[in-house]
Amino acid sequence: MSELETRRGHLASQLRDRKLEALIVSSPPNIRYLSGFTGSNGVLLLSADRAVLFTDPRYQIQAAQETDCNVRVAKGPLFPALMNTARRHHFCRIGFEHTRLTCDAFELLRENLYLGASLEPASGLVENQRSVKSAAEISLIRRSVLTNSEAFQRALRKLRPGMRESDLAAELDYQMRLLGAEKPAFETVVASGPRSAWPHARPTASTLARNQLLLIDVGASQDGYASDMTRMAFLGRPAQKVRHLYQAVLEAQLAAISAVRPGARAESVDRAARRVLRACKLDQAFVHSTGHGLGLEIHEPPRLGRRDKTPLAAGMVITIEPGAYLEGFGGVRIEDTVLVTSTGCEVLTPTSKELLVL
Amino acid sequence: MSELETRRGHLASQLRDRKLEALIVSSPPNIRYLSGFTGSNGVLLLSADRAVLFTDPRYQIQAAQETDCNVRVAKGPLFPALMNTARRHHFCRIGFEHTRLTCDAFELLRENLYLGASLEPASGLVENQRSVKSAAEISLIRRSVLTNSEAFQRALRKLRPGMRESDLAAELDYQMRLLGAEKPAFETVVASGPRSAWPHARPTASTLARNQLLLIDVGASQDGYASDMTRMAFLGRPAQKVRHLYQAVLEAQLAAISAVRPGARAESVDRAARRVLRACKLDQAFVHSTGHGLGLEIHEPPRLGRRDKTPLAAGMVITIEPGAYLEGFGGVRIEDTVLVTSTGCEVLTPTSKELLVL
Repeated sequence: MSELETRRGHLASQLRDRKLEALIVSSPPNIRYLSGFTGSNGVLLLSADRAVLFTDPRYQIQAAQETDCNVRVAKGPLFPALMNTARRHHFCRIGFEHTRLTCDAFELLRENLYLGASLEPASGLVENQRSVKSAAEISLIRRSVLTNSEAFQRALRKLRPGMRESDLAAELDYQMRLLGAEKPAFETVVASGPRSAWPHARPTASTLARNQLLLIDVGASQDGYASDMTRMAFLGRPAQKVRHLYQAVLEAQLAAISAVRPGARAESVDRAARRVLRACKLDQAFVHSTGHGLGLEIHEPPRLGRRDKTPLAAGMVITIEPGAYLEGFGGVRIEDTVLVTSTGCEVLTPTSKELLVL
Repeated sequence: MSELETRRGHLASQLRDRKLEALIVSSPPNIRYLSGFTGSNGVLLLSADRAVLFTDPRYQIQAAQETDCNVRVAKGPLFPALMNTARRHHFCRIGFEHTRLTCDAFELLRENLYLGASLEPASGLVENQRSVKSAAEISLIRRSVLTNSEAFQRALRKLRPGMRESDLAAELDYQMRLLGAEKPAFETVVASGPRSAWPHARPTASTLARNQLLLIDVGASQDGYASDMTRMAFLGRPAQKVRHLYQAVLEAQLAAISAVRPGARAESVDRAARRVLRACKLDQAFVHSTGHGLGLEIHEPPRLGRRDKTPLAAGMVITIEPGAYLEGFGGVRIEDTVLVTSTGCEVLTPTSKELLVL
């Protein structure tokens, strides 16, 4: 049985548990996970014994090569064609992805409902299944992580004071592409000085100056799978305040990593990081959660934050990335990609976590 | 009055026409257009006399710098906070973007509705306004187009037989970044040989071989604004069939450009391209529409395709990109970014449209 068939088999048993006869999969990463299709316009109708992919003529050739599902090419909107097929199979309780589908698309589905059929919110089924990675997926993530770290090393060699943030970001992205990534997993962050206190800063044309914090948050997408890493550099000799800030975040990150094991709840990992930062009076400066799952998407469940009670399981891949941000001064974040194992965890990111003093 | 205020002023008069007292803007490019905010998590509540942006603590500093709107930072989901503000202002008819909002987000809005208030589908208001660009926006698009064409020229100099598709794509993206783009406007397409018949092929590790068609579809995103261009190359001496295919698509493209003028309907431009390809018996091989608007997004209204009756207007920026795809053989697409002017149109893309024989 192929990996795609195994995945659809698992999903079919989830559908049985929920008493759903079919599921309409409309989110591109979920479609890719279950069918192999990577085009931008597709929708998948899945039931216990069949999988039909609907797409438009632009993707006819591509779909035939990428997927083992039945393919139907529709010239207009895909949902009416899909509902026609559902009707022919007399599916009654049909799940749909309510956190992914827009209101107008839902209306289009509803207008095409037939007697006896109902649409049931069923988001999260595929995402939950995706949160635990297969051996094949873990290999792909390992490769994406290595590409990312190697690209980081190569780009660092070109780092010079006076270089623009945007040029360093371009270099990082270029190197990962040459190493086999198809794209960055997200917009690469290169933020220097006070801008490092913006957790999601975009690179600007400002130049890297001496005696400033430099935050680099970079991830590759390779064969569809994401990696994610943040490292800090300092051009010059870091003052006491910088070293304290760095040390506090590093200890929080190590504490969070120590808390990662199967059965531990996502929120407990976040608590471990927050406890350290609170002791350093930096809890107010830590304005996001400690991490997130990643895989075909850069943000996947679980969320390692307050009130996420998901128990971690072997095979999950998550980021651990506490940070502390001081407006007007700068911010520090340290982030690894981490695999939950049967006994604890493995930090996949091989890059040193020492503050890079350049 | 600032450009942002002017935009919100225009929108306010659209709201009056629709008898809406407020609009919930949830789509990131629409939020950026109306408020200047570029973060990934935000929602805007807009009425005739005020604009309030809701975001989370990660974007507190960034929002304060980017937008002239009032900013509210919410720790949990943004919609309940937004509905609280709406309630305080006693807004009754509140528009929302039904083609952008997911079903679960809509439910969250509905759960927070108060007595006397209703939610009205109102997608397209901001998009329609965005389809006609201001002078400032046209300047930004011109710059994005020039960056894109210059990056193409620079990358071409590195093109060699034996180079991987993915390396050429990496080079294109790298050059545009060095020239000031923040990212590619979409995943750069470099497709050689039979893969050029996949209209949306992703670059692979296959190497550029002699005597094959090579399709390059590339666009920059610079200061938020997109450009889009497709050019064809051939390594070696193109056979008759290749030259005929190229010539047919080129004539279709020129015919479509000639049809662009204010007042012409979007579908009539598509018809002009299709007519030429039909005469060459290639209409079945033209599997997409002739073009689309672009700006803050790579795909915006209007769609230059069948059944889009939007009248073109001066200030619209669109792509003109007919193509013909022969499975197993290869495909040809030629694409420019074009500005609709008061008298006709101006092709913004400066790059030669001759088949690049290398």
